[in-house]
Amino acid sequence: MIQVSVLYPNQSDAKFDMSYYTERHMPMVQRLVGDACRRIAVQRGLSGSQPDSRPTYLALGHLYFDSIEVFKETFEPHAAQIMADLPNFTNLKPTIQINEVVMD
Amino acid sequence: MIQVSVLYPNQSDAKFDMSYYTERHMPMVQRLVGDACRRIAVQRGLSGSQPDSRPTYLALGHLYFDSIEVFKETFEPHAAQIMADLPNFTNLKPTIQINEVVMD
Repeated sequence: MIQVSVLYPNQSDAKFDMSYYTERHMPMVQRLVGDACRRIAVQRGLSGSQPDSRPTYLALGHLYFDSIEVFKETFEPHAAQIMADLPNFTNLKPTIQINEVVMD
Repeated sequence: MIQVSVLYPNQSDAKFDMSYYTERHMPMVQRLVGDACRRIAVQRGLSGSQPDSRPTYLALGHLYFDSIEVFKETFEPHAAQIMADLPNFTNLKPTIQINEVVMD
């Protein structure tokens, strides 16, 4: 299993609409990509390791696929449409990384 | 539900022993913290958004708790012992952040 992680950095001028992200953006991704996207996880950054410190990321979204090949086959045909939705909920440029799921 | 994420940056001189991390370190954390740690997840960074690019993080570990209060009560008494185990599997200083689980 692989995980595509999209990490939205916590900049000082950051805007991020979590309701749009979870209620409209992620459902659109699931609809376009279909069952190949096995699971979606989303977190909101609260703090660093100390409660009063700033989190490195404001929001984190993760898409799970059986393999990188399945991700590429099913996501890339819709990548432009999905990326075009970003300005509807954020002004941030996310850091994206592909991970192997080792424990879950 | 909250998630404590420990992100190990992918530096050029990075050392990270994933076997030790999953077979010894994380089981030790689970044993010390007990059932308050609801779940443990671990990922290995494979690449950035492009298959031939470097991932931002080499490894990512996540501990799930019912609340920040439960995390503090159950983890902090063991924090020194847990942190002292890091040199046994890595030379990296992790980025730590506490997240609220929004979708899972």
